[in-house]
Amino acid sequence: MRTTFHQELETIDEKLIGMTQLVQSAMGRATTALLEADDVTAREVISDDNTVDALRREIDEHILRVLATQQPVAGDLRTLVAGLRMDRDLERMGDLARHIAEIAAEDAPRDAVPIQLHGIVHSMNRVALHLAEQVKEAIAFRDRESAAELEREDDEMDTLHAALYKELLASALPMQTALDLALLGRYYERYADHAVAIAESVRFEAAASA
Amino acid sequence: MRTTFHQELETIDEKLIGMTQLVQSAMGRATTALLEADDVTAREVISDDNTVDALRREIDEHILRVLATQQPVAGDLRTLVAGLRMDRDLERMGDLARHIAEIAAEDAPRDAVPIQLHGIVHSMNRVALHLAEQVKEAIAFRDRESAAELEREDDEMDTLHAALYKELLASALPMQTALDLALLGRYYERYADHAVAIAESVRFEAAASA
Repeated sequence: MRTTFHQELETIDEKLIGMTQLVQSAMGRATTALLEADDVTAREVISDDNTVDALRREIDEHILRVLATQQPVAGDLRTLVAGLRMDRDLERMGDLARHIAEIAAEDAPRDAVPIQLHGIVHSMNRVALHLAEQVKEAIAFRDRESAAELEREDDEMDTLHAALYKELLASALPMQTALDLALLGRYYERYADHAVAIAESVRFEAAASA
Repeated sequence: MRTTFHQELETIDEKLIGMTQLVQSAMGRATTALLEADDVTAREVISDDNTVDALRREIDEHILRVLATQQPVAGDLRTLVAGLRMDRDLERMGDLARHIAEIAAEDAPRDAVPIQLHGIVHSMNRVALHLAEQVKEAIAFRDRESAAELEREDDEMDTLHAALYKELLASALPMQTALDLALLGRYYERYADHAVAIAESVRFEAAASA
């Protein structure tokens, strides 16, 4: 019985890691689409988001099934409930990558990001992808340490976001470009916030099993 | 045993409705602070958000306790899991009201919203407050009808949001004002999205008990 239960937990973890992989790939490709005004990639990211949403529903149902049939308590219960939070955060990370792809698709073949701001968007993407990588590790190893590191990295995202805002204020960009960039900055920042929320879920769970 | 369980569910519902009341009040006051450049009210909204966050933790723990001690299945299990989703959405609605108050506090005594855009912000606030009202009803009556109505009202918010964006493009506002307004529009829109997500949770639950 316990073995079956822990096999179920492992399968759920594998699905969560697979979902993280998908939203990491979506973010990387959305940024490429954005910086290279690549319409085809942008549309791919938009349609691939359905797979992320479907995976979330699958994980939800899986967790509910295990809750109903195995009736876990204490740490095991928290692990499952944490899974319900995590798949929600991952779904939002997918949505945010899709929003970035939508801006890329809308503006292509025009470049949505002026060349002088490519560097900062590249950096925001780099931090986002690295955060997603750490989310995978945090889930795989139920690791409180990497959860703390994730929060430090989120500070780097906030610094980049503030720098972007400052650039926008100082620039004489057309209004539409500036508004798009303000939203883009917000999407990268929120993606990072959700990664941190997942780290918090891992910690919530670790607190129970400590 | 069953009676105790249903008393627990009622208490959890009351807490969720209380939390909705708080985030509704927060949004109303944040908008007042914004449109009247009222620093004192803005700061109140910001500090009151701690109460919302604490209530969310309380509801989470309450639901986990009931899950562990009563080991519900089927519809009852879904009701509790839906509660975990709802308190998360409500917490975000509180955060978004706080973000609006933060813009008000930052800009006061300067008016963050130019007078010609007061009408549209008023309308977004009106829709937001009405959505929160419907969330209370949807939770209280576990009502699928009001859940559907809520989605229609969200369309009105999207229309207002698009109109605001168009106004910003057509205007010759200073960059900082325009960027603040773009974010403000997004905050009202996301507040409405979370209200709709709560309606979906009510429906998810109703689907199970149908």
